[in-house]
Amino acid sequence: MIRPNMATMLGYLATDAALSQSLLQKMVRYAANNSFNRITVDGDTSTNDAFILIATGRAGNVEIVDKASSEFRVLQQAVTEVAMLLAKAIVRDGEGATKFVTVKVEGGRDLDECLKIAYSIAHSPLVKTAFFASDPNFGRILAAVGYAGIDDLDVRSLQLYLDDVLVAENGGRASSYKEQEGKRVMRQPEITVRVVLNRGKISTTVWTCDLSYDYVKINSDYRS
Amino acid sequence: MIRPNMATMLGYLATDAALSQSLLQKMVRYAANNSFNRITVDGDTSTNDAFILIATGRAGNVEIVDKASSEFRVLQQAVTEVAMLLAKAIVRDGEGATKFVTVKVEGGRDLDECLKIAYSIAHSPLVKTAFFASDPNFGRILAAVGYAGIDDLDVRSLQLYLDDVLVAENGGRASSYKEQEGKRVMRQPEITVRVVLNRGKISTTVWTCDLSYDYVKINSDYRS
Repeated sequence: MIRPNMATMLGYLATDAALSQSLLQKMVRYAANNSFNRITVDGDTSTNDAFILIATGRAGNVEIVDKASSEFRVLQQAVTEVAMLLAKAIVRDGEGATKFVTVKVEGGRDLDECLKIAYSIAHSPLVKTAFFASDPNFGRILAAVGYAGIDDLDVRSLQLYLDDVLVAENGGRASSYKEQEGKRVMRQPEITVRVVLNRGKISTTVWTCDLSYDYVKINSDYRS
Repeated sequence: MIRPNMATMLGYLATDAALSQSLLQKMVRYAANNSFNRITVDGDTSTNDAFILIATGRAGNVEIVDKASSEFRVLQQAVTEVAMLLAKAIVRDGEGATKFVTVKVEGGRDLDECLKIAYSIAHSPLVKTAFFASDPNFGRILAAVGYAGIDDLDVRSLQLYLDDVLVAENGGRASSYKEQEGKRVMRQPEITVRVVLNRGKISTTVWTCDLSYDYVKINSDYRS
């Protein structure tokens, strides 16, 4: 799902490359799953979204038909990077956003659990108001991990980082952690929350923003 | 789950009635499922909650052992009503709450789909800011129903009411609906949103509140 605040997101990307329709379909799915399908402002979803990738063939290249070819990989990477740039721009433009937050979940058993944890953090109003306050409240983040619905996850076995700062491990505050370091990171306009699950090899990334007074203002005053 | 803003909710109820432990266990589950398990402020969940029902036996009655008896039913109803009163008090005390909102979902196929729809409405920041604004924005409510994850639900077959006012049916604004009627309901301190699914016989009710400036203030300024 694409989740930018009920706005109608209509995304169009075009390439002059020639490639088969089946590869084009594969490419658009991959790009969407790593960009527009990994963003959230407030958890609300649009009723009307589309992301369309068009290949004109104007480049005159020999049609790309092999998904293992370097041509396919290079083009897929380029298309995905443009889609990521646009997706992140939607988050930066989120109602009242003052912080751009990258949530990385690493070392998971499968993508599903990584996404559940990432979105649980990214959707928590308590986590989002702490970002707005520049408050390194790791208890709120750990609580969101805990209620993400991963039955056999032991919160004591994970590490939580704010940027490069190890904040929590063994179920509580890391012994090396100094709150002034956490505050330094939280005052930045761009913050990375990284959760290392230590139970598998799968990772994912979700982008979100904070929850500010202006979020409430924009979404309640819009008709007056 | 009990969802009042990470607060530790420790609930204790006592009755002087004598009843068997198995019936007491049944009663506490029923009461919790119709009270503390049906409330939400912001979707965040507490890490530490308990609800305990104690029967002292002091009333000196013959021990209640039959769940079909009128004694059991009367006592269960009384215990549940007290639990509901306390649960609603938690919502009324939600951070920054200016509106008390009852979300009823009726005519569902099973409890699971009724709860998914009720919580989807109750957790939507867009719906909650519309309550704060006293704005009868039924599009936001219908969108929350639509993304609740009920695959075969046709939004065109449901009716949406604000209190006694039919607001939407057949997938859009009801022909009889006048916006001033919706505004009248939304300006009240207590509002009931009722979704009639017309596909089964199961109903449920969830209680929540709006999302105001003060929610953000209380959850971001608490350390300064």
